[in-house]
Amino acid sequence: MHRVSEKLGGRIAFGGDYNPEQWPESVWVEDIALMGEAGVNLVSVGIFSWALLEPEEGRYEFGWLDRILDLLHAGGICVDLASATASPPPWFSFTYPHTLLVDATGVRRNFGARQCYCPSAPEYRRAAAGLAGRIAQRYADHPAVVLWHINNEYGDHNWHCFCGVSAAAFRAWLRARYGELDALNDAWGTAFWSQCYTAWQQLSPPGAVSYNSFANPAQQLDWWRFCSDELRDVYRAETAAVRAVAQQPVTTNFMGLFKPLDYWTWAPEVDVVSTDHYLIAADPDNAQQLAMTADLVRSLAGQRPWLVMEHSTSAVNWQPRNLAKAPGQMRRNSLQHVARGADGALFFQWRASRAGAEKFHSALVPHAGTDTKIWREVVQLGGDLRRLAEVVGSRVEPAQVALLFGWPSWWAATLDSHPSIDVDPRVAVRRWHDALWARNVGVDFCDPSADLSGYRVVIVAVQYLLDDAAAARLEAFVRDGGVLLATYFSGIVDEHDQVRLGGYPGALRELLGVRIEEFFPLAEQATTALTRFGPGRIWSELGAAQGADVLATYAQGPTAGSPAVTRHELGRGSACYVGTELEEQGLAELLDLVLDSAGVRPVLAGLPRGVEAIRRESEQASYLFLINHTGAAVVVEAGGTDLLTDADAARVTVTAGGVAVIRQHR
Amino acid sequence: MHRVSEKLGGRIAFGGDYNPEQWPESVWVEDIALMGEAGVNLVSVGIFSWALLEPEEGRYEFGWLDRILDLLHAGGICVDLASATASPPPWFSFTYPHTLLVDATGVRRNFGARQCYCPSAPEYRRAAAGLAGRIAQRYADHPAVVLWHINNEYGDHNWHCFCGVSAAAFRAWLRARYGELDALNDAWGTAFWSQCYTAWQQLSPPGAVSYNSFANPAQQLDWWRFCSDELRDVYRAETAAVRAVAQQPVTTNFMGLFKPLDYWTWAPEVDVVSTDHYLIAADPDNAQQLAMTADLVRSLAGQRPWLVMEHSTSAVNWQPRNLAKAPGQMRRNSLQHVARGADGALFFQWRASRAGAEKFHSALVPHAGTDTKIWREVVQLGGDLRRLAEVVGSRVEPAQVALLFGWPSWWAATLDSHPSIDVDPRVAVRRWHDALWARNVGVDFCDPSADLSGYRVVIVAVQYLLDDAAAARLEAFVRDGGVLLATYFSGIVDEHDQVRLGGYPGALRELLGVRIEEFFPLAEQATTALTRFGPGRIWSELGAAQGADVLATYAQGPTAGSPAVTRHELGRGSACYVGTELEEQGLAELLDLVLDSAGVRPVLAGLPRGVEAIRRESEQASYLFLINHTGAAVVVEAGGTDLLTDADAARVTVTAGGVAVIRQHR
Amino acid sequence: MHRVSEKLGGRIAFGGDYNPEQWPESVWVEDIALMGEAGVNLVSVGIFSWALLEPEEGRYEFGWLDRILDLLHAGGICVDLASATASPPPWFSFTYPHTLLVDATGVRRNFGARQCYCPSAPEYRRAAAGLAGRIAQRYADHPAVVLWHINNEYGDHNWHCFCGVSAAAFRAWLRARYGELDALNDAWGTAFWSQCYTAWQQLSPPGAVSYNSFANPAQQLDWWRFCSDELRDVYRAETAAVRAVAQQPVTTNFMGLFKPLDYWTWAPEVDVVSTDHYLIAADPDNAQQLAMTADLVRSLAGQRPWLVMEHSTSAVNWQPRNLAKAPGQMRRNSLQHVARGADGALFFQWRASRAGAEKFHSALVPHAGTDTKIWREVVQLGGDLRRLAEVVGSRVEPAQVALLFGWPSWWAATLDSHPSIDVDPRVAVRRWHDALWARNVGVDFCDPSADLSGYRVVIVAVQYLLDDAAAARLEAFVRDGGVLLATYFSGIVDEHDQVRLGGYPGALRELLGVRIEEFFPLAEQATTALTRFGPGRIWSELGAAQGADVLATYAQGPTAGSPAVTRHELGRGSACYVGTELEEQGLAELLDLVLDSAGVRPVLAGLPRGVEAIRRESEQASYLFLINHTGAAVVVEAGGTDLLTDADAARVTVTAGGVAVIRQHR
Repeated sequence: MHRVSEKLGGRIAFGGDYNPEQWPESVWVEDIALMGEAGVNLVSVGIFSWALLEPEEGRYEFGWLDRILDLLHAGGICVDLASATASPPPWFSFTYPHTLLVDATGVRRNFGARQCYCPSAPEYRRAAAGLAGRIAQRYADHPAVVLWHINNEYGDHNWHCFCGVSAAAFRAWLRARYGELDALNDAWGTAFWSQCYTAWQQLSPPGAVSYNSFANPAQQLDWWRFCSDELRDVYRAETAAVRAVAQQPVTTNFMGLFKPLDYWTWAPEVDVVSTDHYLIAADPDNAQQLAMTADLVRSLAGQRPWLVMEHSTSAVNWQPRNLAKAPGQMRRNSLQHVARGADGALFFQWRASRAGAEKFHSALVPHAGTDTKIWREVVQLGGDLRRLAEVVGSRVEPAQVALLFGWPSWWAATLDSHPSIDVDPRVAVRRWHDALWARNVGVDFCDPSADLSGYRVVIVAVQYLLDDAAAARLEAFVRDGGVLLATYFSGIVDEHDQVRLGGYPGALRELLGVRIEEFFPLAEQATTALTRFGPGRIWSELGAAQGADVLATYAQGPTAGSPAVTRHELGRGSACYVGTELEEQGLAELLDLVLDSAGVRPVLAGLPRGVEAIRRESEQASYLFLINHTGAAVVVEAGGTDLLTDADAARVTVTAGGVAVIRQHR
Repeated sequence: MHRVSEKLGGRIAFGGDYNPEQWPESVWVEDIALMGEAGVNLVSVGIFSWALLEPEEGRYEFGWLDRILDLLHAGGICVDLASATASPPPWFSFTYPHTLLVDATGVRRNFGARQCYCPSAPEYRRAAAGLAGRIAQRYADHPAVVLWHINNEYGDHNWHCFCGVSAAAFRAWLRARYGELDALNDAWGTAFWSQCYTAWQQLSPPGAVSYNSFANPAQQLDWWRFCSDELRDVYRAETAAVRAVAQQPVTTNFMGLFKPLDYWTWAPEVDVVSTDHYLIAADPDNAQQLAMTADLVRSLAGQRPWLVMEHSTSAVNWQPRNLAKAPGQMRRNSLQHVARGADGALFFQWRASRAGAEKFHSALVPHAGTDTKIWREVVQLGGDLRRLAEVVGSRVEPAQVALLFGWPSWWAATLDSHPSIDVDPRVAVRRWHDALWARNVGVDFCDPSADLSGYRVVIVAVQYLLDDAAAARLEAFVRDGGVLLATYFSGIVDEHDQVRLGGYPGALRELLGVRIEEFFPLAEQATTALTRFGPGRIWSELGAAQGADVLATYAQGPTAGSPAVTRHELGRGSACYVGTELEEQGLAELLDLVLDSAGVRPVLAGLPRGVEAIRRESEQASYLFLINHTGAAVVVEAGGTDLLTDADAARVTVTAGGVAVIRQHR
Repeated sequence: MHRVSEKLGGRIAFGGDYNPEQWPESVWVEDIALMGEAGVNLVSVGIFSWALLEPEEGRYEFGWLDRILDLLHAGGICVDLASATASPPPWFSFTYPHTLLVDATGVRRNFGARQCYCPSAPEYRRAAAGLAGRIAQRYADHPAVVLWHINNEYGDHNWHCFCGVSAAAFRAWLRARYGELDALNDAWGTAFWSQCYTAWQQLSPPGAVSYNSFANPAQQLDWWRFCSDELRDVYRAETAAVRAVAQQPVTTNFMGLFKPLDYWTWAPEVDVVSTDHYLIAADPDNAQQLAMTADLVRSLAGQRPWLVMEHSTSAVNWQPRNLAKAPGQMRRNSLQHVARGADGALFFQWRASRAGAEKFHSALVPHAGTDTKIWREVVQLGGDLRRLAEVVGSRVEPAQVALLFGWPSWWAATLDSHPSIDVDPRVAVRRWHDALWARNVGVDFCDPSADLSGYRVVIVAVQYLLDDAAAARLEAFVRDGGVLLATYFSGIVDEHDQVRLGGYPGALRELLGVRIEEFFPLAEQATTALTRFGPGRIWSELGAAQGADVLATYAQGPTAGSPAVTRHELGRGSACYVGTELEEQGLAELLDLVLDSAGVRPVLAGLPRGVEAIRRESEQASYLFLINHTGAAVVVEAGGTDLLTDADAARVTVTAGGVAVIRQHR
């Protein structure tokens, strides 16, 4: 991101997707002028331009793109130039019908929407890399281009394909993974249900099977792994073609907690980590969802500055009810991203479309034009971001708490045929993050293979799958003085989804000093009473402490007397365990206990709930972001200068819905 | 209908579908006798008789049909003779498997139910027209035949087909519509998502696309148009074959507010407009649904008398819970149709089937025979209709209010990827119709291309798509003294589903004197407060009056202070706008305000709610229908004679659930 | 079962599915030792072993099976040896892809789960019978083998297949059933909707038809019949191969009230009736479900002892939320089965799997090993069953009440296009069974073709389809002094699903002395008031008594005054009718009235609700089982000896959740 920021003159990136091909060239001039008015400095061009750039196979038309890039450059606006491969044009799908997606029931999905391609299709890969390379070659030296935008939201509509080509690719992937069929049969446990494979060609994707039955879970888990890898190979092919001829950094836009792609394995492959983030209207706490996603993305970026590639000025178009943003909400959203480490706030899209499937998606320039709430807020935001230029390059204050989160564990935990459909790692992780957010305690996400030594507390919430190495790292973390907090349904299986025997949770049993002998999931909407920490939902267990102190037991039902919350002192640290899903108050009590024991402090204490505090730090200064999500103003005694107002911030009033960014000397 | 009525001796048509092929000929004699007892004078014969009339390709067996037609004629019963093409026999589908429907996922649907054919299949069209012509030839001069019944409920189970033949037909239809690919690309906005078509053969129906994505909306809209046209071509082919050899009028049974067929484009093609109408058990106000549908069908018929081709004596069989009709309800239903302009009340079907998918559908002769509530009510109804013979040919008193309703707008408004799934034109229109019904104010439906000059009030409720001509007609209507009432999500797009820019609602912005800059759909079940007219649901907006008077603003939330209800004086008329879905009381208040300002009067004032009043008028007399849907008798001072009782109606008591039809001199 | 029990030394069978192939041979030794500790005496081996026994076509590996059978025999454990055909291995499906299931939309379902085969596939049948015969040949004389376990849970995941082979088999089945097409056309009522078949090859399974339409109901009904028969033919082929070379009795495990298989037609084909029974977590009264299923299975077994082939020690894995069993619950479940006639209590499975789709299914040896609640309860249960050895071979005291229950009626009653989707024979039968269970009144299930002469009361609850013979038997039963209790929607159609005309319920009208002219299903969640027996749900009717006494009429709505509950004295007996679904209290009142009039007595009177009493009888003794499902101890003055404690049972205390089995002299 550093190289991009430099090209932007050290300013925070501001702008969005720009699709000039949807408009006559006469509009382009107005676009450049309005971008100037708003302070836009970076736009993504060409994401869906394949049909225009290559109107027939092998014939390219770059004239229009030359013209708009020159116009943008003349207007002082930098460009994130796309490989233009997100959606192959009709002629491509028509010429190569076998590149079209096939779903789990064997239906070949037609083109006419977007991302209609099979990720394994060699014709698509060849064409995409070819186009990416050709664009890169032409514009490698264009002064406007500061970043390459490879494809778009990989996998959003084509995360898996069940065609014959995909099946062959899956077989090859399995062969590379297991070497011998015996190893695969062992890993998949094919002795069960007479599934032993005796030749590689017998293997296939886990498509539609016999009615109401379950495909082999390890096969399903490997299928998720394969699909993520397969799309990454598409990314690699496009990126290689670009890097071969161009020097600018490369990105592709992630989608936060997007289930199909294991972004821990993707992040090392991009120069700039970027993400798209849209509020979910049905989530009343979507600012917390935003904070969590930003923490994840920053963690993917290795704490380096990152980019919000897309968010929205107001409503989107793809939810059942697409709520518009209230006045001030867009600004809070954008500054919340910056607070959590983003050095840019971009939007989909510059000008609202008149036609097409996203015409009701909000934009920087709405259908109604510039005499609008949205445009006025866009201009205001442009000014705010300009005022915050000095935070560029600074990093969020190192967190003392980490949330362990692995995609394979997510995939495995949510397979069919499990104890309870109410168990959801994403929800569980979100609940702990919400509680940390409410305390203004900083938190990172960690890959299970990550080094944990920098943290005081590690939370392992519904991390069902843990391999031996991850378990060993957690034990070392505790013995070295860390505080572990683990929940139910963590460490149950190994990397092949095979249960660790001898008592749950096999991978953590000795570390936690607890042995669970039987799961007691709760009925729908049911709760169970605990002797402390309030009632539990979703889950309960029968077991016994084996070394741990029992902080609470179940107080009713078939598990009465069995430990529900425990703490095990081990080496210089301790390991807590909770065997149920606590309600908000109990979760808070347990979290406070853990944070206190680890000596973890919030960014700023004493703030009312809903007033968010985060700190970014450069070598010279520290920037305290205060974001007021409540309906009442709050007064904070901070010290320093509010960058947004240039006012002294000894005693700063953050208005209802407002934001302050206070420069303090380190 | 006039020619049919003449053949019936000037009586109201009474009878229903008659399927003698389901019964041994010995039953036929009893049938004729019972028809006589009930006063049946018109039956539809042969609708599902293809398999019996042409038991193998090219071999015809008309003997049984000769016999039953002769029997009916001898019994004084006229016949609506079917083209017998609604359901091809097994041998046909077996011989021509490519005529079977293919669904959006590519599954070829099997025969074994009904309407299994692809509307574009040339073999089906040829065979259907052939059979229709052959039947018409044989029976053109049969004295019993007074009407031709082409096919049956076109499109009910095969409204679209995604086979290759259909795709080719769609391409041809598009080529005829757009001429050049450039025009299609412009209309569809294919610059979006790289969808530019470069050859006609690339075009295809909007079938299953990539996961969770959206097909091009203009493509979807044109697909709806094409599917309606394609079935109309089937109708045309059959009808041409009949008209070539026979003189009697032609009909096909519509299905009221049936989404797939744009009946405005069908109605001019039939000699007699007829419809099927079934109560929806889950709708507690199904008499209001009936009234609305009758008003629509009368409007389709250009105010000429029409025909209820099918309704039911009691329960149907295809709903989750098929409620029987309470005593008296069938009579009220039938007379309600007559009141709103029908010159016939026919039923599905004469005699309840013992076997098959509709054996639990009620009939004139139920399973239990004639010692039944149903049969007694049938006989009573036959008598009532005989007594009403003099209303035949009269027309419903001209309405002063019109509801604008366009099928393309309905299709476009309910596509995916829209601001809110709660927006439903059918529901919105129904709510305004309900309020008019409760006031006994007469109302017509209008095609957006219709002449509006005869009306005082036009209501445009959720008419999302309005072309320029429709918008111009609405403006002229207001300038000429009319009162327009328009709601949210009207006039948003043009005929290609492209947003009209510059502020919503683009087509009506100047006419309404309102400019909306941003939609604020409401969350599920949420309401928003207004300063007048009570709370709103579903929708709210941010905007400003530009010439209009503000009657109410939003009183809370992000749109607080923005106009919710406005009135714009323009020329000699005025145009009201409401930007949310009012609850019943607020809607009533606004409607009263509009009706008052236009000087619209009810058919009869002062009736208790639920007592319906409609008037039909002939040159000689006026017929006041009073239908009491309540549980209490009502006394009306009317003047005239009750045709049903021959009693003087100076002061008529309409019993609970009862009906009076009062002849008054004009 | 007698021959099996003898081989077990007269003991109750105890054990379960044993899948040693999932574990290294080193574990086998521990298995045998633990089985000895628990008192296991019968295990099912090889159910999913095809892939290991025949790793490639025609090559067999029996060595491992030889070794484990020898080990088991040495350990004193008998074997129920499987035909190993439940799940063909990948090589088989890969080699014979046309044996894979095809669903109703034409999708060929892949292997990779279990039961992936088309029941009609000749290659599968040949291979399955071949493998079964080869296993039987090898182990016919093995001393451990006491029972043959043919396949497994036939039809659970492949109850129907729509492939071309299945279609051809269906045609052949229809040809055998009807002989002539005319007979089929008559039976199916194909005059309706132009469905007349003119050649056998036109016939096909009722797969996906035109949108929202209904396939011919008689075709659907015959399809259910065919599918049950077709799987029975698979069973027959495998069994014939086994019987050709081996002498031991043969079983296949039923699944209680499993809709696709008409077990009345299967039961005569097995030597030992066995069933699998799993609690449904969402059913709070699952002990009553268990009792009902046990009564059904005992009835299928002709009152001879039967076998619980599979139940669970605790949670299963295939429900949304898989609740574990509370302490003591497994024991109650097992002894409840024994009380109702089982001479064995087996489980799925011996040792919980580490891998595969059922790894979270509980087992006798859980993941956590033997220091567990489950293992301790298993050992306890083994002891209890040993103590109950003398009940082996005894029979449940003959019931005086029978529930008529026919699979074709169930299939027909739940087809589409019916008066109300709320009508469910399974639920209706369960409600009457629950009420009998609450009274400790013994009850059998009866095939509609069964001899009823041994009963005092026969209950016909929602038995929609009754053929003439069944109706005649019911009349004879009443005339001979029996008491019939029939409900709504019984006796409506004949065996071809054709309505019996002249008034409902056609088959029982004269017997009941009631004539119903019209059904009035109730709206969702609605109730209707009766003059006695409390409110009714789901259904009401309009009709009149014709000979019957009216015990209650409807008290409101359109059916007010019409009989709701009647009693008709006929010959030496009486026939009661109830035309609605009574609530619990009204149902109890009516049932008491019926039982009293028939002089039916409970097994033991005066027990608190939830204390279950059943009696088994041998020539020498009577065994009173008392099962306390409540949370409070109960004292019963019984007399005799409690077999479980050897204590005198003059006054026995059955603890909360406990069981007593009291030997009393006859």
